[in-house]
Amino acid sequence: MKLSLAEPKYLKESVSIISDLVNEARIKVGRDGIELVAMDPANVAMVIFRLLPSAFAEYALESDVNLAINLNNLKQILRRAKPNDMVVLELEDGRLRIQLRSESVRTFSIPIIDLEHKEQKIPELSFPVTIETNSAFLNEAVDDADIVAESVSFIADPGKFTVRADGDLSTANIEIKAGDETNIRTDSKDKVRSKYSIEYLKKMMQGSKLSDRVVINFNHDYPLRLAYNTIDRVMLSFILAPRVDND
Amino acid sequence: MKLSLAEPKYLKESVSIISDLVNEARIKVGRDGIELVAMDPANVAMVIFRLLPSAFAEYALESDVNLAINLNNLKQILRRAKPNDMVVLELEDGRLRIQLRSESVRTFSIPIIDLEHKEQKIPELSFPVTIETNSAFLNEAVDDADIVAESVSFIADPGKFTVRADGDLSTANIEIKAGDETNIRTDSKDKVRSKYSIEYLKKMMQGSKLSDRVVINFNHDYPLRLAYNTIDRVMLSFILAPRVDND
Amino acid sequence: MKLSLAEPKYLKESVSIISDLVNEARIKVGRDGIELVAMDPANVAMVIFRLLPSAFAEYALESDVNLAINLNNLKQILRRAKPNDMVVLELEDGRLRIQLRSESVRTFSIPIIDLEHKEQKIPELSFPVTIETNSAFLNEAVDDADIVAESVSFIADPGKFTVRADGDLSTANIEIKAGDETNIRTDSKDKVRSKYSIEYLKKMMQGSKLSDRVVINFNHDYPLRLAYNTIDRVMLSFILAPRVDND
Repeated sequence: MKLSLAEPKYLKESVSIISDLVNEARIKVGRDGIELVAMDPANVAMVIFRLLPSAFAEYALESDVNLAINLNNLKQILRRAKPNDMVVLELEDGRLRIQLRSESVRTFSIPIIDLEHKEQKIPELSFPVTIETNSAFLNEAVDDADIVAESVSFIADPGKFTVRADGDLSTANIEIKAGDETNIRTDSKDKVRSKYSIEYLKKMMQGSKLSDRVVINFNHDYPLRLAYNTIDRVMLSFILAPRVDND
Repeated sequence: MKLSLAEPKYLKESVSIISDLVNEARIKVGRDGIELVAMDPANVAMVIFRLLPSAFAEYALESDVNLAINLNNLKQILRRAKPNDMVVLELEDGRLRIQLRSESVRTFSIPIIDLEHKEQKIPELSFPVTIETNSAFLNEAVDDADIVAESVSFIADPGKFTVRADGDLSTANIEIKAGDETNIRTDSKDKVRSKYSIEYLKKMMQGSKLSDRVVINFNHDYPLRLAYNTIDRVMLSFILAPRVDND
Repeated sequence: MKLSLAEPKYLKESVSIISDLVNEARIKVGRDGIELVAMDPANVAMVIFRLLPSAFAEYALESDVNLAINLNNLKQILRRAKPNDMVVLELEDGRLRIQLRSESVRTFSIPIIDLEHKEQKIPELSFPVTIETNSAFLNEAVDDADIVAESVSFIADPGKFTVRADGDLSTANIEIKAGDETNIRTDSKDKVRSKYSIEYLKKMMQGSKLSDRVVINFNHDYPLRLAYNTIDRVMLSFILAPRVDND
């Protein structure tokens, strides 16, 4: 296996974002690219990541490779890559070798670890609501909500997406209307409404570093899906369990 | 009541500065603008703030409004306003509603609170010393003093304003001379000297975000007054009790 | 004694760097400039600093002056100097007076202290290895090593300088080859290798603020010398004891 990245940004940012949710994860390197599917330790959020072969300057692979690593270790090494460094990933003596090549050659090696838990299956979900908008709009709305509460309701009406938070004292209500920058499709005649943890949303929203656009899917008291894609490069999506009130 | 601000900066910065001194305060909305007069909890400093009707794009008011709010809540919401957002303040169901309007409409609401303590009266003070200078000069002098001591003496001579701090080991002495940028007027033939807390001064000096110029008034062992004004927009002044040595 | 600096940068940065290693130090002011030689409290690192008379706009001295000061005090004052301030050092009433002159005159004074410990002698060392390179390359290599371990090996081969760190799990290996930017001279036919503390190296590497180039000298399990010089201005060098493994 020898994988070379001329633009380290996509791997670097993705690993940094994912490592905020998951410490250790299994990575599959196959014909369709690098793939990672993992649950956070609290079983509340799933991350689904794919880095496409077209993102690589060189993608040499004899057979599929399955390896588990500590994402925090990898993040710290990738953080050392400058924008123009060539990043080369190889296996060597049962370890993952990461080279950053520019005037100097900087070689890091991290252990491949054993992961007990079984492979994660991506759940089949059906979403009546699809909103495509600027990732900055979603970030802003969730950051607004963050100053009044710990959870936020996503509400879809035809033509309108509302982010609403009710704190003990203050409230925040952000309306994003369908328009040039925002496309809202809902198969439901009624409002669709569900509540999510702001702490998790803020971690997932970091996907805006990969893409200016986000696709938001949800349903009534149902998981949320956020997808950040850059064509021919990277797909990063998240599934987040809803918060259901017990009162 | 409906008050719309096209330049949120003046309200945003003022509330941020004031909330460093005062947690909760009574605000009067009247024909002459928004007014706030409050003491800090330690009764050492008073803040006097007025945002003029000419600072508003719309200033609709049927009758005077008196409301008390938590300034920290309001600060956090105003911090979310971008420079070009229209900020609209209204009363709704006994709460203060703050809207930030741009492509999206972001609506916040905070409770109006009960404030036990009575209305603050602005004390009548007479100052023989008036210094008008760049607010950056005052900031620099107090920051200099801050590295050697916790309190600082302001000393006015004809033609010279001195900021002096004596620490246990080190001393700092900053001279600002009358000139193009600094106007010094003193009605006393002798030096006028008084000592103030640097911690409080540093909070008040944030007024430099509103105005490049500051007016400094004081007297011998007597309160200090700092005033930061932007014509037709905002007046922010502070009164600070002196530190009198007991030795 | 009256010493005036038109470019405060060299003194300011040097004192800031040195004060990270040494709290109190003796300074000699003589015909050849200001000189400071000091050990860190743990006796692991020595710093040798000289600010040349040609770095000064005025260098008036009747006789040599020997004074000990708290470097942290001096650092805090020099930090207040803006790039275009004239910095004037004088003795007054047994204290060191530091003036920062621009539109305003800002005068600080700090005590001269008693230092028990005797004058430091610079040890005589012989180094078979001399590497001259960009200080940014060394900084990068040590920062790379820092993410995997607490100490780092410097390894010199003919034509190649390697910085290597072995952590409990991860490793880092940075190769800097001789070339346009890097000059490597070794008198030994074998590899020369020695290990140093990354914590200390990171403090010393701050010398890169004074010079884009660094001269690195070491020997097998032997002290390291790092030298940062700016011609006609400043010489800052460090000697660091090796870490010798006991296993």
